Amino acid sequence: MPSGKISLTDGMAKVIIVGAGGVGNVVAHKCAQASDVFTEIVLASRTLSKCEAIAADILAKQGRSIRVAKIDADDVAATTQFLLDEKPDLLLNIALPYQDLPLMDACLAAGVDYLDTANYEPPEEAKFEYKWQWAYREKFEQAGRMALLGSGFDPGVTNVFCAYAQKHYFDEIETIDILDANAGNHGYHFATNFNPEINIREITQNGRYWEEGQWKEIEAMSVHQTYDFPVVGQQEAYLLYHEELESLCQNIKGLKRIRFWMTFSEKYLTHLKVLENVGMTSIEPIDFNGQQIAPIEFLRAVLPDPASLGPRTKGKTCIGCDIVGMKDGKKKRIFIYNVCDHEECFAEVSSQAISYTTGVPAMIGGMMILSGKWRQDGVWNMEQLDPDPFMEQLNLRGLPWQVQELPLG
Amino acid sequence: MPSGKISLTDGMAKVIIVGAGGVGNVVAHKCAQASDVFTEIVLASRTLSKCEAIAADILAKQGRSIRVAKIDADDVAATTQFLLDEKPDLLLNIALPYQDLPLMDACLAAGVDYLDTANYEPPEEAKFEYKWQWAYREKFEQAGRMALLGSGFDPGVTNVFCAYAQKHYFDEIETIDILDANAGNHGYHFATNFNPEINIREITQNGRYWEEGQWKEIEAMSVHQTYDFPVVGQQEAYLLYHEELESLCQNIKGLKRIRFWMTFSEKYLTHLKVLENVGMTSIEPIDFNGQQIAPIEFLRAVLPDPASLGPRTKGKTCIGCDIVGMKDGKKKRIFIYNVCDHEECFAEVSSQAISYTTGVPAMIGGMMILSGKWRQDGVWNMEQLDPDPFMEQLNLRGLPWQVQELPLG
Repeated sequence: MPSGKISLTDGMAKVIIVGAGGVGNVVAHKCAQASDVFTEIVLASRTLSKCEAIAADILAKQGRSIRVAKIDADDVAATTQFLLDEKPDLLLNIALPYQDLPLMDACLAAGVDYLDTANYEPPEEAKFEYKWQWAYREKFEQAGRMALLGSGFDPGVTNVFCAYAQKHYFDEIETIDILDANAGNHGYHFATNFNPEINIREITQNGRYWEEGQWKEIEAMSVHQTYDFPVVGQQEAYLLYHEELESLCQNIKGLKRIRFWMTFSEKYLTHLKVLENVGMTSIEPIDFNGQQIAPIEFLRAVLPDPASLGPRTKGKTCIGCDIVGMKDGKKKRIFIYNVCDHEECFAEVSSQAISYTTGVPAMIGGMMILSGKWRQDGVWNMEQLDPDPFMEQLNLRGLPWQVQELPLG
Repeated sequence: MPSGKISLTDGMAKVIIVGAGGVGNVVAHKCAQASDVFTEIVLASRTLSKCEAIAADILAKQGRSIRVAKIDADDVAATTQFLLDEKPDLLLNIALPYQDLPLMDACLAAGVDYLDTANYEPPEEAKFEYKWQWAYREKFEQAGRMALLGSGFDPGVTNVFCAYAQKHYFDEIETIDILDANAGNHGYHFATNFNPEINIREITQNGRYWEEGQWKEIEAMSVHQTYDFPVVGQQEAYLLYHEELESLCQNIKGLKRIRFWMTFSEKYLTHLKVLENVGMTSIEPIDFNGQQIAPIEFLRAVLPDPASLGPRTKGKTCIGCDIVGMKDGKKKRIFIYNVCDHEECFAEVSSQAISYTTGVPAMIGGMMILSGKWRQDGVWNMEQLDPDPFMEQLNLRGLPWQVQELPLG
């Protein structure tokens, strides 16, 4: 058994965290907790006051000071200069997906390693694909820098779960179903943790999965199943496209099919559908007493502030990979998963489980790079690296996992 | 059989129609059609342009000119002066329920008969009762004027149906269930024919019915039944309070129970409930970019313009009275009803059936007064007057009715 102790290659590591939303808050808290690894922390965002509030909370909870800075992640030249001045070992990009490429450019120019939690999305089209970031492979290799992509939970931990299953449980994996259940309850009829536009896009875009070397498209929300999750029990899970499918279908050898499922309550779907039906989710401005107002902006002002959800959300999340394959000539099926409790997360880092499950793996990904365990030049997806040290840290840093043997379906 | 011919007491009758919304439009068209009775018509409202548009449509459809005028129905002194100048025989109040008392005052002051379609509601409280208008009985008697209350469909035709059943079908009526089904479809996911606040109040206020001399209250929308209507078939009907119950329970002798039911589709209720849940139906202003905006006002701007529904609404309404009682020592049950087609109404008078079924009875009530058939000093509800001439005109003026014998439940 490994010891769980992470040794820094040179004993000191400075990290810049970019982004001070819910996930940035978790990453900052968790890096601050891991003071043996992250010896210096700077939390940077467009809104300095958000960074200051997080720093004050960390000081109150842990007695540790972190620095804050104001940056504009879209401005490559200014960010490059900021990095040249700060000289960090690593940048953790917890900003918006639109900012992946500008931050990768700044890291390349300043000679800094890079990590993010979600792949690049061009601002002008709702299309998330790895192609833009994979195109940076040669540049990072030539610059002698590393970029680790998608180090959140899904993508991120789910990719590592697959790599771990492949290494320890199977000779060959045949099918993977990634299942993401949020069984939390904030007590409001309807609220969103993040931008409702993204919620709407999730349930209105066609679903997509990969089978026998081909992408197969289905009508939005048309394929669903009742899945019996550990701890949170039966939930209705809908087949969606999710970004980790794109790299996993390439990196898991012998794979025949991979799908992603997310649970939604009937109530949530009904509310979202009605709001869409009446036009309240439209981004097209309407005339209201001579002003142009986009209905979705007004809806956002009517709905509960996402920041108000954290303290009142109860219940748990359960995210895992249901994997079928061959081992020693026999077919077998396992479910590798984590269960995370909203209230425990909030008590620890002032964010609930949705942000916690994304932020902790970002911190651990940072550990993997800084400790040298995963450090190699180029652009990498999570499943391409040794899962064992990452899986060990999940158990130590707040996201313990289990492996369950399941009967073959 | 009566001839159906209506004779004016003096051969000439001038009517003022107050209100130029959907129902006012129907009343104006239908009065203009009945040129033998309504020899002079003035359509008056706060918004002159609405009156002009209706007058132009009547001219185009019938080749008949009506006059228009601008009045403020809340201003009793100005309205009295207007009536003294115009010298009409009758005022048809098709304005808002808030304006019943000011218009009754003006009619008394100017010596004009009065008719309305919905009972008075104080602007400051959502409580509709006859008590305020019944308090005018002595004044109208002393002034030698008539006020006819609630001459729409429900109240109005439903009251006349009950009086007709009592006169021709029963020795004693035991129970009355009034059923109102709108099986029309405008093709939008959600739209309201009138103020959504009124829709919301309907389904959120407690229901109420009268039994054995007492009012019984039920939780909002908690009592419903699937009722098999003629022509429009099975519809889910919800027990609500409706204003005709208040007079009918007093005027139908021997009555044991009276209830009112309205149909709502599950989709309609779901949309209204979601909009209420998320706060979009609130009249309390929220702060939006520094302005105070009531969510319901913004919702109204997002929803289809009610005026756009008329040309696209298909399907039919069915409203009737399901009555059980004794005749010649035997129990019997009948359903008296009208079926009205949205598209046919729109083709005839440029309004669909919701407005048509309310507007035609207002015109017929006017005929009853001007012809002398119902004319008597005082304040009257519909069921207190002879139903036969009114029932005859329903068949002649676009709202034919049927009587169906039903098996005892």
